[in-house]
Amino acid sequence: MDPIVIVGGDAAGMSAASKFKREHPERDVIVFEKGEYVSYAACGMPYYIKGAVEEFDDLLQVSPEAFIEDRDIDLRLHHEVVGIDTGAHEVAVDGPGGSFTQSYDQLLIATGARAIEPPFDGMELDGVHTLHSLDSAKAVHDVMENQSPSAVAIVGGGYVGIEMAEAFDAHGVDVHLFEMLPHVLAPFGEMVAEHVEDHLRDEGIELHLETAVDGFAGDDGTLERVLVGDGAFDVDLALVGVGVAPNAELASDAGIELGETGAIAIDEFGRTSADDVFAAGDCAESRHVVTGAPDYVPLALTANRAGRAIGQTMAGDETPVGDIAGTAAVKAFDLEAARTGIIDESKAREAGFDPVSVTIEASSRAHYYPGAKPIHITMVGDRDSKRVLGAAMVGREGVAKRIDTVAAALHTDTTVGELEYFDLSYAPPFSPTWDPVLTTAKVLNGKLD
Amino acid sequence: MDPIVIVGGDAAGMSAASKFKREHPERDVIVFEKGEYVSYAACGMPYYIKGAVEEFDDLLQVSPEAFIEDRDIDLRLHHEVVGIDTGAHEVAVDGPGGSFTQSYDQLLIATGARAIEPPFDGMELDGVHTLHSLDSAKAVHDVMENQSPSAVAIVGGGYVGIEMAEAFDAHGVDVHLFEMLPHVLAPFGEMVAEHVEDHLRDEGIELHLETAVDGFAGDDGTLERVLVGDGAFDVDLALVGVGVAPNAELASDAGIELGETGAIAIDEFGRTSADDVFAAGDCAESRHVVTGAPDYVPLALTANRAGRAIGQTMAGDETPVGDIAGTAAVKAFDLEAARTGIIDESKAREAGFDPVSVTIEASSRAHYYPGAKPIHITMVGDRDSKRVLGAAMVGREGVAKRIDTVAAALHTDTTVGELEYFDLSYAPPFSPTWDPVLTTAKVLNGKLD
Repeated sequence: MDPIVIVGGDAAGMSAASKFKREHPERDVIVFEKGEYVSYAACGMPYYIKGAVEEFDDLLQVSPEAFIEDRDIDLRLHHEVVGIDTGAHEVAVDGPGGSFTQSYDQLLIATGARAIEPPFDGMELDGVHTLHSLDSAKAVHDVMENQSPSAVAIVGGGYVGIEMAEAFDAHGVDVHLFEMLPHVLAPFGEMVAEHVEDHLRDEGIELHLETAVDGFAGDDGTLERVLVGDGAFDVDLALVGVGVAPNAELASDAGIELGETGAIAIDEFGRTSADDVFAAGDCAESRHVVTGAPDYVPLALTANRAGRAIGQTMAGDETPVGDIAGTAAVKAFDLEAARTGIIDESKAREAGFDPVSVTIEASSRAHYYPGAKPIHITMVGDRDSKRVLGAAMVGREGVAKRIDTVAAALHTDTTVGELEYFDLSYAPPFSPTWDPVLTTAKVLNGKLD
Repeated sequence: MDPIVIVGGDAAGMSAASKFKREHPERDVIVFEKGEYVSYAACGMPYYIKGAVEEFDDLLQVSPEAFIEDRDIDLRLHHEVVGIDTGAHEVAVDGPGGSFTQSYDQLLIATGARAIEPPFDGMELDGVHTLHSLDSAKAVHDVMENQSPSAVAIVGGGYVGIEMAEAFDAHGVDVHLFEMLPHVLAPFGEMVAEHVEDHLRDEGIELHLETAVDGFAGDDGTLERVLVGDGAFDVDLALVGVGVAPNAELASDAGIELGETGAIAIDEFGRTSADDVFAAGDCAESRHVVTGAPDYVPLALTANRAGRAIGQTMAGDETPVGDIAGTAAVKAFDLEAARTGIIDESKAREAGFDPVSVTIEASSRAHYYPGAKPIHITMVGDRDSKRVLGAAMVGREGVAKRIDTVAAALHTDTTVGELEYFDLSYAPPFSPTWDPVLTTAKVLNGKLD
């Protein structure tokens, strides 16, 4: 029988390969990875640059040797799949030894995403970086360690921008953060964004909101200035983090359907429009648990679990890849921010809901317990169905994992009134008697009537 | 119309009074409280004794004056209800001005619970305390502050015992903790208990497990020794915390039905067997969300939300008091322990389930992120229905609120396989990619097949 073939050796690909091999050790699994790293911790890159993660190797979760020797996976580094013939069930591969074709029984496309490179002038200058790979993280890290820059520019106030602000600041450099929109962290909503922005400013970050970067300039091919409208700021390094785009070209060139988001369309088992071809991870869409519609939210857990589920399905045990709720958390210096579901009211209306939202301030601990900190929560419910649609929160402690209770409510079609009566844990060092989530649900429920 | 009458001015009673008054400001609400404190933070007492909560008044959440003046509640301190005539719809009251009867339109019994006083010799000695009221907390606090005891005994390894071990230890005294059973914290299961026990020993607590205390001895009416089997330990103070019993006598004397647990039986709206008589809080049973059967788990949130729901029901808007999951958290020095649902396999079998459980070790943060700590989780599922039945966990961070995700799963009849695919938050400082709860569900699901 032809082997299982997997394109891309990161989270989704290696999870699928590992799971399939556990189920069918006698079958061959080939993974083609065009780079030299597999299964690496992309989310750890800002912390490596910060210096909090000391060793580069700590970002490598499982070594290529372990996959090859311990898990008996035929992993081929520096092999790029350049074409898929879905009819013939084979892929065209460029490798160090030349080009060849490989036939497959079942194929998984796990090509990931890439950092979007905006059409700025000067993107090619030395000193302008994106954070799209371990090599780019290493490059930025080495500049910070060895070249003592005095000022850096971050373009984009998403996760990467926020985490990198903290990372650069730890090196004692001036940090300029440019965001085109009125607020950073768009998916978290305005309330969270404003708290994060205040905190970034308190930490000394120079925030430039509603500020479109025009490009970069410098002599001798080296970055010296970031150009903004009429002005310019002197910087030694720029990091462009304006989002990612799915690596969907291999699939679309093969005639495989993409979704409206531009990522590869899949069914609930991760199947693409081509027979025996699956897609997972940052190159693929997911189904949103609140709307039931396809969405593109490329995050690590989604890739891991979809890969694992597809490994299981390819092994004969049909397993859905799971819906997403868009749950996410981010650390911004001493703040934690988290979100899940649909927070944006216009997005909720587009999905057919009649959104009602409340924002409250609660406490992370019993009011009398030392160290209690405010937690600010926005929760959105649907007036018709009374369902919880989403929530966002921000505070100095007890935020990142508190959002999971709301995520659980989304996965179970829980109404706001039902959430209000969940029996959540209480002890003075960890929560008020009514957990902030319960209090928010209580207030929102009063407004839904 | 006769007033709403409430017996007991703590969490359940004052929540009901406040909620009813908000709905019907024109109606009279009388609260009879036999003591002088209302709506106080009983759970904060150990932290007051520890010295972490500096002011006694911080434990008083809302003052009597605020209830009377701001909320227009007819609160009568030092008034004890000594009888209920459910037929005549009136209560007999002993107050500072004498005895009288008060008729009611609807009645809420919120008499709370009391510390169990075991039939030990020497319970009456000076220096032997229970922690049943703010006054008792004040007495223990004052001894610790003013009399510099050198050794104390705690009898009972439940929440109170564990929290008080930390509180006493903060004063630099020798702490002996006696537990009759093989392990402390019985509701949390053996795995959690063993971690807590190791940690208590590391912190210098002298743990005496499987050790029944026979009594106390001392000359001149003052405690000097705790007696255990053939031996004795010299102590200056003893705190007996072997559990609480519902104050259900007032109800049972009035012919109101008690449940098998000994607490007042109620329906889903908090109604007792007598017309127009409700019960809530530590004197009443609750329905367990996993078994659907009555249970007695006297905790603060249950009292608060049942009181509020009953206030709403009495006001004409029928509102269920909510099921409990037995969710609880406790801090033991640097450890957090938490539990929800059914953990004990024999209890699960009694309830008709076929329990399967797993215990795993996971990490509180990404493995490479500084400060990551182990989290140990036990999760129990039902082989037939595949439902999650309960979980317990312990670790140095990220435990107390992580249990809430499992509690949410219990409230929504979620299967282990469904829980495995919840989209929970991930960022390296707060969680591994697969949250420990997801990993545990994944492993348990594999065992359920």
